[in-house]
Amino acid sequence: MPSSPTSDLAPPEPRRGREARRAARAQRGVASIPYITRAIPTTEILGEEGLALIERNADTLLQEIGIEFRDYPGALERFKEAGCDIKGERVRFPRGLARQLCATTPASYVQHARNPERNVVIGGKATVFAPNYGSPFVHDLDKGRRYGTIEDFQNFVKLAYLSPFIHHSGGTVCEPVDLPVNKRHYEMVYAHMRYSDKPFMGSVTRPERAQDTVAMCEILFGTDFVANNAVCTSLINANSPLVWDSAMLGAAEAYARANQACIITPFILSGAMSPVTVAGTLTQVLAEVLAGTAFCQLARPGAPVVFGTFVSTLSMQSGAPTFGTPEATLAIFGAGQLARRMNMPFRTGGSLCASKIPDAQAAYESAQTLLPTMFSGANFVLHAAGWMEGGLSASYEKFVMDFDQLGAMHVLAKGIDLSENGQAMEAFTQVEPGGHFLGCPHTQANFESAFYRSNIADNNSVEQWQEEGSKDAATRANAIWKKMLADYEAPPLDPSVDEALRDFVERKKASMPDMNY
Amino acid sequence: MPSSPTSDLAPPEPRRGREARRAARAQRGVASIPYITRAIPTTEILGEEGLALIERNADTLLQEIGIEFRDYPGALERFKEAGCDIKGERVRFPRGLARQLCATTPASYVQHARNPERNVVIGGKATVFAPNYGSPFVHDLDKGRRYGTIEDFQNFVKLAYLSPFIHHSGGTVCEPVDLPVNKRHYEMVYAHMRYSDKPFMGSVTRPERAQDTVAMCEILFGTDFVANNAVCTSLINANSPLVWDSAMLGAAEAYARANQACIITPFILSGAMSPVTVAGTLTQVLAEVLAGTAFCQLARPGAPVVFGTFVSTLSMQSGAPTFGTPEATLAIFGAGQLARRMNMPFRTGGSLCASKIPDAQAAYESAQTLLPTMFSGANFVLHAAGWMEGGLSASYEKFVMDFDQLGAMHVLAKGIDLSENGQAMEAFTQVEPGGHFLGCPHTQANFESAFYRSNIADNNSVEQWQEEGSKDAATRANAIWKKMLADYEAPPLDPSVDEALRDFVERKKASMPDMNY
Repeated sequence: MPSSPTSDLAPPEPRRGREARRAARAQRGVASIPYITRAIPTTEILGEEGLALIERNADTLLQEIGIEFRDYPGALERFKEAGCDIKGERVRFPRGLARQLCATTPASYVQHARNPERNVVIGGKATVFAPNYGSPFVHDLDKGRRYGTIEDFQNFVKLAYLSPFIHHSGGTVCEPVDLPVNKRHYEMVYAHMRYSDKPFMGSVTRPERAQDTVAMCEILFGTDFVANNAVCTSLINANSPLVWDSAMLGAAEAYARANQACIITPFILSGAMSPVTVAGTLTQVLAEVLAGTAFCQLARPGAPVVFGTFVSTLSMQSGAPTFGTPEATLAIFGAGQLARRMNMPFRTGGSLCASKIPDAQAAYESAQTLLPTMFSGANFVLHAAGWMEGGLSASYEKFVMDFDQLGAMHVLAKGIDLSENGQAMEAFTQVEPGGHFLGCPHTQANFESAFYRSNIADNNSVEQWQEEGSKDAATRANAIWKKMLADYEAPPLDPSVDEALRDFVERKKASMPDMNY
Repeated sequence: MPSSPTSDLAPPEPRRGREARRAARAQRGVASIPYITRAIPTTEILGEEGLALIERNADTLLQEIGIEFRDYPGALERFKEAGCDIKGERVRFPRGLARQLCATTPASYVQHARNPERNVVIGGKATVFAPNYGSPFVHDLDKGRRYGTIEDFQNFVKLAYLSPFIHHSGGTVCEPVDLPVNKRHYEMVYAHMRYSDKPFMGSVTRPERAQDTVAMCEILFGTDFVANNAVCTSLINANSPLVWDSAMLGAAEAYARANQACIITPFILSGAMSPVTVAGTLTQVLAEVLAGTAFCQLARPGAPVVFGTFVSTLSMQSGAPTFGTPEATLAIFGAGQLARRMNMPFRTGGSLCASKIPDAQAAYESAQTLLPTMFSGANFVLHAAGWMEGGLSASYEKFVMDFDQLGAMHVLAKGIDLSENGQAMEAFTQVEPGGHFLGCPHTQANFESAFYRSNIADNNSVEQWQEEGSKDAATRANAIWKKMLADYEAPPLDPSVDEALRDFVERKKASMPDMNY
């Protein structure tokens, strides 16, 4: 039951002179397909028997151990009414009930952007890339590691807006630590609305902040439109193992009631917050998603929910989280299969790494997360760009290095072109054995679109590379993000809407004292 | 028809005192499984229809365009006798004939090592990693880029010997440019025999150098053993497009007649040596492999042959080769499918990159080659470690960084453990919701083997990392390879065999003047 892809947003009025040129330039600068439609197969790491086993074990967990819904009496009441066994805050599900409650979740939905050309489908064969989320620190080669600010936040929104390979503006692209905690969300949501026209995520740290997000969406999109369409997709993390807490439940309920989408995500460092094995972790993931999704569907049947999975491993020596590891890859594939069997959109992966700098470790680990993500059938990919230091840092250089990897994924996702042009049989009539295809008509006809063209990789001779300063990839990326920000122009926004948004934000901020919780 | 895995090599005599301790240490230092047995699915990027289309097109190429066998009248005679149409050096195959001639190729074979514990299976579910091949330059962080020497060659052989994740000593791990071209192969083959006990590759630059390799194998393994078993696997590259030349054909024939294995490999920079599309490139790959394999099978039916594929793309702007690109990934998957349909062992991939240094570009591109390689079902993976600068440089740091990635692939290849211990249902009875799994009995019982443990990745806090010098991955790798070489001890080799090998090498070298071709 996807939402309708149509939009009641009027096309922008024709513009003239300098503004028209600027708008045209902005348009050109961010020309991009709105999301990927995958034509590649998924990796089915588990067979039918393995999947059924994990589903059976998850049902056993839900029935015998149960899930705690903490400090949220409304959840307990609703689950009791639905037929669960409640003891204290522990909710135990009769075998099969949780899955049955999840059945009203749409298989896919459209998340609308204020620019309808950037609407995204979340579900099915679609894959949507969103940037890094939640880092308190930012990092660049010039200033090193430091706390994030609202300026950094705006910069990341602008960079994501400018990348043709990022489809979604994301949410907490970094923490604007210079703003009081209770007022950050206003400036974060406003930044997504003002500096980008891509779809975005809402605040989840308190139910009232979720409601503020919806209120701002109503200003931007119109109240009727928001009532009938998904305009934000927000991140609801479990307090794994087997706990949902009141902050997340409150935000999830606020969004579900407003018919807005939630990504129900077990956030797991395997070995600490789940068993040390992949199968055990997948069992817990499934149980937590079933319980969280059932909660949303009880709040509003049919509200869009995404089957989320964030699985990393631990260094068993130091307890530090590790990324891009083979166990995480296996979990990514397995979770994708479990999500497909629930007929739900699937979120996983990204470009994860533990490195403190954008070096080879960062790249190996990111690629070892991103490529499995593509073949897991992921529909929504948070942390697709910029993630560094186990999520503690958002890196400017890695942001644009990852863009480039995402660009490559666009080409990969198309699969192999078997058209007559793709078969290229005419090329063989144009080039003799031992000859050279570079100049032949078939190559010339396909010259422009032939191969994905990286803006980070240096493929020149070593001599030319030395002449240009022997720069590493991160140093080249440093110049790229600076040029992107220097050239940035905001997408047009109706001044009256902007004014209404600023008015809302300023009024709300003035209505309460600064607080850091 | 795999060769027998048994070996007539006598177990080494018991040793005493210092030598015994050294031997025991050497044994310990290189404990490793001999090869990977994949329990993960392959990525089937093409459907039945697409595969049949490419096979049909390849047959059309063989029939209508044909393949040139240059300066090798024996090939033309044999192909004529087999029913081909010969015009000049052009061989055209009646539809289906080439495939029919390839039918005697074994689906898998055992390549024997002088240490029988290191014998490898090549084919089926087995994956064998071999190091970088063919680089004229070497690179390390201390001395930068320079021509390779026989000392570098020996160092790479030693490092590959020491890695538990490299199964094969490879061939031209770097070019020993300090030796005359016509004598290099003696010292290269000797280095593999002396400094490692893993299986290795032979010389292919001239037929007589292939014969020298076989002669040295006869000294090492015994003449009878070599007559009945594969003891080397050697790399035979096509002169793409659609040409096999006399040097490669001569070496291939020498090895095939000796019942030794060849990897028949179209070496293709797509857009220059093949059409600019993936489907067109795969068509050419298949045609060239069919022709090259047919040649080997005509030389000796049943001789082991590997379906090789080396596909990279081009920068259409500069003409420079590019690696880790999405088009190469698609070609890797497709070629694997074509090889499986021929029931032949498959070689592709590795850890390829264009970067001049072991930076993020090197790592992104390498991972984007290696992971698809695993899911392509590759049986023999050349360039699995050390490849840099489009193959022009062998990097010491990247050698050990790639080892670590190969280690992760060992874990990935096992798939998801669904045993009772893997399911971990008991762990959930040991940890309450909201609790912590790190100390629970199930985690403790699986502590040692729980997660793959990287020796390159730094997962510590930023503070600890800074305290330790804020090193990047390459700098950490620099310390690792130096320690490995410092600790290296050669595997024991019967002194009389060693003497016989040295005698052969010295006599041969003395028998001709130095030449650089």
